[in-house]
Amino acid sequence: MFFTSDNWAGVHPAIAQRLSEESSGFSAAYGASELDKRVEQRFNTLFEREVAIFFVGTGTAANALALAAVNRPGGVSFCHREAHMIEDECGAPEFFTHGARLAPVDGENGKIDPGNLKAEIARFPPNFIHAGQPMAISITQATEIGTLYQRDEIKAIAAIAKAKQLPLHMDGARFANALAALNLTPAEMTWQCGVDIVSFGATKNGCWCAEALVFMEPGMAKDLPYIRKRAAQLFSKTRFIAGQFDAYLDDNLWLNLARHANAMADYLQKGIEQAQNARLAWHTQTNEVFCIMTKDFAAYLKQQGALFHEWNPPRAKAGLLAENEVLTRLVTSFATEKAHVDRFIELLG
Amino acid sequence: MFFTSDNWAGVHPAIAQRLSEESSGFSAAYGASELDKRVEQRFNTLFEREVAIFFVGTGTAANALALAAVNRPGGVSFCHREAHMIEDECGAPEFFTHGARLAPVDGENGKIDPGNLKAEIARFPPNFIHAGQPMAISITQATEIGTLYQRDEIKAIAAIAKAKQLPLHMDGARFANALAALNLTPAEMTWQCGVDIVSFGATKNGCWCAEALVFMEPGMAKDLPYIRKRAAQLFSKTRFIAGQFDAYLDDNLWLNLARHANAMADYLQKGIEQAQNARLAWHTQTNEVFCIMTKDFAAYLKQQGALFHEWNPPRAKAGLLAENEVLTRLVTSFATEKAHVDRFIELLG
Amino acid sequence: MFFTSDNWAGVHPAIAQRLSEESSGFSAAYGASELDKRVEQRFNTLFEREVAIFFVGTGTAANALALAAVNRPGGVSFCHREAHMIEDECGAPEFFTHGARLAPVDGENGKIDPGNLKAEIARFPPNFIHAGQPMAISITQATEIGTLYQRDEIKAIAAIAKAKQLPLHMDGARFANALAALNLTPAEMTWQCGVDIVSFGATKNGCWCAEALVFMEPGMAKDLPYIRKRAAQLFSKTRFIAGQFDAYLDDNLWLNLARHANAMADYLQKGIEQAQNARLAWHTQTNEVFCIMTKDFAAYLKQQGALFHEWNPPRAKAGLLAENEVLTRLVTSFATEKAHVDRFIELLG
Amino acid sequence: MFFTSDNWAGVHPAIAQRLSEESSGFSAAYGASELDKRVEQRFNTLFEREVAIFFVGTGTAANALALAAVNRPGGVSFCHREAHMIEDECGAPEFFTHGARLAPVDGENGKIDPGNLKAEIARFPPNFIHAGQPMAISITQATEIGTLYQRDEIKAIAAIAKAKQLPLHMDGARFANALAALNLTPAEMTWQCGVDIVSFGATKNGCWCAEALVFMEPGMAKDLPYIRKRAAQLFSKTRFIAGQFDAYLDDNLWLNLARHANAMADYLQKGIEQAQNARLAWHTQTNEVFCIMTKDFAAYLKQQGALFHEWNPPRAKAGLLAENEVLTRLVTSFATEKAHVDRFIELLG
Repeated sequence: MFFTSDNWAGVHPAIAQRLSEESSGFSAAYGASELDKRVEQRFNTLFEREVAIFFVGTGTAANALALAAVNRPGGVSFCHREAHMIEDECGAPEFFTHGARLAPVDGENGKIDPGNLKAEIARFPPNFIHAGQPMAISITQATEIGTLYQRDEIKAIAAIAKAKQLPLHMDGARFANALAALNLTPAEMTWQCGVDIVSFGATKNGCWCAEALVFMEPGMAKDLPYIRKRAAQLFSKTRFIAGQFDAYLDDNLWLNLARHANAMADYLQKGIEQAQNARLAWHTQTNEVFCIMTKDFAAYLKQQGALFHEWNPPRAKAGLLAENEVLTRLVTSFATEKAHVDRFIELLG
Repeated sequence: MFFTSDNWAGVHPAIAQRLSEESSGFSAAYGASELDKRVEQRFNTLFEREVAIFFVGTGTAANALALAAVNRPGGVSFCHREAHMIEDECGAPEFFTHGARLAPVDGENGKIDPGNLKAEIARFPPNFIHAGQPMAISITQATEIGTLYQRDEIKAIAAIAKAKQLPLHMDGARFANALAALNLTPAEMTWQCGVDIVSFGATKNGCWCAEALVFMEPGMAKDLPYIRKRAAQLFSKTRFIAGQFDAYLDDNLWLNLARHANAMADYLQKGIEQAQNARLAWHTQTNEVFCIMTKDFAAYLKQQGALFHEWNPPRAKAGLLAENEVLTRLVTSFATEKAHVDRFIELLG
Repeated sequence: MFFTSDNWAGVHPAIAQRLSEESSGFSAAYGASELDKRVEQRFNTLFEREVAIFFVGTGTAANALALAAVNRPGGVSFCHREAHMIEDECGAPEFFTHGARLAPVDGENGKIDPGNLKAEIARFPPNFIHAGQPMAISITQATEIGTLYQRDEIKAIAAIAKAKQLPLHMDGARFANALAALNLTPAEMTWQCGVDIVSFGATKNGCWCAEALVFMEPGMAKDLPYIRKRAAQLFSKTRFIAGQFDAYLDDNLWLNLARHANAMADYLQKGIEQAQNARLAWHTQTNEVFCIMTKDFAAYLKQQGALFHEWNPPRAKAGLLAENEVLTRLVTSFATEKAHVDRFIELLG
Repeated sequence: MFFTSDNWAGVHPAIAQRLSEESSGFSAAYGASELDKRVEQRFNTLFEREVAIFFVGTGTAANALALAAVNRPGGVSFCHREAHMIEDECGAPEFFTHGARLAPVDGENGKIDPGNLKAEIARFPPNFIHAGQPMAISITQATEIGTLYQRDEIKAIAAIAKAKQLPLHMDGARFANALAALNLTPAEMTWQCGVDIVSFGATKNGCWCAEALVFMEPGMAKDLPYIRKRAAQLFSKTRFIAGQFDAYLDDNLWLNLARHANAMADYLQKGIEQAQNARLAWHTQTNEVFCIMTKDFAAYLKQQGALFHEWNPPRAKAGLLAENEVLTRLVTSFATEKAHVDRFIELLG
């Protein structure tokens, strides 16, 4: 019963197969191959516009390079207090930007509250050099706690970004899960709502190591070839990333994989709603489920072979848990088997 | 006729096969899986001592992180003037070290001259803060121009490093080619000669993307887990690197692949020695061949389908070339076919 | 009526006089002069132990270099949410540390609450590389809002620092004001309470430009000569800083100047307590006074020639002000004239 | 006999006097005072155009911030091999630019050779990301070895800069000495020849600590207020720098001080030309004199009270010195007394 993270899953057979096929022959290195060029074109089609696209090795690299591309001295980027870039990247955004700051913004359900965002940006008046200067806004879709920004919510944040002339970045480590849940196209969920840069993740959804940084306005990325190279994220055999994406995007594989993960999470949530020994912390629409149970029961589940993370305070907010309770995070993936979910639900009683 | 670079080659079938096998199932992320641990153990065996080993995505990352691990404020690292880290990494070492400097050292045959090294280090007297402070020495084995440090030559540089209490790094982007050519063990070519850190490259020799940073003294790497993570080089599904190494090291595959590449280069050199329209620039023992011909003849070869880089001045040193000549670099790999070399030699006339 | 900041005041005549006297003759540069050495000795005497001392040009430099001296990859430093280093230095601490993070800690009266500090540090469990690693704790004495840590309060924070093996830094931009108010010696207020590093400010209290970074354990500063030099904070004619400190420390001038500033603030506070058109926001013991009045009345005061900053929300906390009110900050200095305070109080009605 | 460096001299009485006068009263901090604004205006007049001017504390800060203002990822700045920024600033330019590189260019007489400059720039072809990208050219006027670029020589370098769209920086640590020797105006020696940025030094020529960074095109400095602040180079009592410049520029004081220093150097050189125990290494027109003598004789001079630096190999080029000889550097300043020069010449025999 593997619910620790979607990055515990392996790789979808179609993607492994494509890599095997690509392994023979010779091909131009550093992104100049025909395959690289062809897959870059697919992203143009996917986003229904000419984008600038950069393959990188990790989601952390994509996020950090996105900020590096729009870096400013004394710069401050705004993201949700629970965002991956501020909680789980060991300061990579600060490193890649030579010390720009991440300012946490509060908001319910893992989402930036527009009013709070305005108030935080207002701490940095124009030309008040002592405080520094706003530089970017970043949202996570799906969020770190499995929730989703609706299109109107993205637009509300984009309006603030536009008013302040700040680029809007979307951390799409679970981009496909969000698209599948909202039944939107990439264009509808991004630039048509005002998103400027996307960290387009595929690793968690069936690839080995395939992340892309997508700029809606190629001019915004003009220095990125140099930034990426000196950040050691330009792979020589980039075919290995391009090839994964090629298979990933074929025949809607990526969306189908995400739909499976989401469906498993939904099924799991329905089970928890009926359970005696656990309750949902909040409802989610994607592939992360948050569930409250006693410490003793969590220990029992682990003993029975269930694997999951605990989301201890301060991650679990004050008031959410009784003293003997824990918040557990259960992540499904493209590879989650229904039998495992069934067994888990059965254990919940 | 693919002689542009060894990173134009694909991936050896045994490695592709292993990746396919690893693609199913679930496994702990971020290096905690059994496979990761087992492959780490293999490196201990390989180096005949307990080493600290870190998988990373690119050779540039390995080199830059090696210097980051031993970084000092105002630090200066010494490497050969033609080293990859100073010529071809877009300032990655400077970026990862927050501005430490690379000081080029001259030397014949692509190798640091010990006398020149001493003279360069002497520019930084102890406690003379205006100049900065020495921080590391880096050698490349095999060198950027296909030559090799003999064990005594490594020891001579290591003696200088030890006298100045500087760590000695080896850029082993073509580590296997060097080992195969010198018929040495990893231990013999590294720590037994005084090498402290190795960038252990496998990408150029049959993998997709498999590089490792090896510290002979694990204590020297105590901060590296943090440094690597915030450098966005900690992959979630590290199995994809560990798995490549696992197949790479099985049954001496890696050395056999390197031997093939070296043999092809040797065969090519013998052909050039007999050729009417080209001459060897210098003799090499590994998988890079440097060859001088007229510009017209180089153009003719390209027209005939031969792919290679020109090593234009200032890379080609003053006096080496007549006015109408070019220096060409021909790189063989594990995948080079003898028929291609034959055809190339035939064209040389 | 100059209450904008203590850095609007000029320089005490005795300090200007000393600079004039030092202006003739020749002297070793870069801190090697007899005067430099003699003043360094005075700091040993002042702190009753052998300290490492570095003269720098600004308080921001002192704070940022303090963190640079104890920098760690993925490092996180803890300071009060309203600390100068996090609010008013345009990211200098992040820049000097190549991207280490400042984590704000809440606490009443401008002081870090030990419970909150423990909770924040607990967000960074040992060896959990995703979050980063704790690196330092910084307190401000006197605080940004004019309050003071009592010795027991410093000791409580130092105990947490020691338990976590973190160095404890004190931003002493108003060090003399704090000492004078608490009637303590430098030793009593610093290392005897567990403080490891002090930013020893003198600029705000009668100098042109005289700041010192003091390390209680010289070994903690072993790289600082290089760090300071490459941070462009090693002045060639350091006599100009050393000379200011020499006059500043003579005959208790520094403490007398601070006592005057504190007394003026106390006098001002007593006046506000009696006033009809303003009320104290909170009581302070040093040279900053915070006072609440209507926006209209603040405008009237400015029109009458009173100069001061408004401390607008979010600096003024929610609930402190009625809708038509502002929080004003009134800073006294060594140069504040009683007549100006009298006139200001008179205006308050 | 003080010939160690011009930064061993103190401060001209007129400058000390002005500082004393400015020490009383209150004034806006952080560069907003009337005095600051008035002195900024003087620079416009001085350069005969509207410039952007930033006061900073050290020459190293001025140089490093100049490069930071025009920083690019993977950036490479070109300067003479003996330039102060590459030899004597402990990596400050690299630190302030987050790792941009300084590429040394050779040239006779301490001056960049245009042919060599072109060749070095050619190492970085457009869009060849592996090498990095050119970012700036920096010349030193007067040079580190006391020589001068003639206007035509500056123009020749500026033409290369313009052709490559690179900003041209002038390190003017001894700007006044150069102007005085060449009998040019600031405009004639800078922007009229194509110089874009000047580090305008005054510390070595009679101030305590007064350096200014001057941008001929204010738009080039648009981010500099933030860059300077987070580099801890924005002084609160900037009057202390503005005041020094104000006295420095009054009544041609600065040029008169430089003329004296130059005249003393000229007088010293004439003496050396007649001496038995020393010979000129090369002739200079400013305030640095380079002189060759035996080691024994240098020791004798020191014993007699002469203070100077030795310019040991590799600073002294191969072939310049016999085995028992040393190259000595003798620096005069505004404060050099003729009697000391006479005594020194007398000792030379």
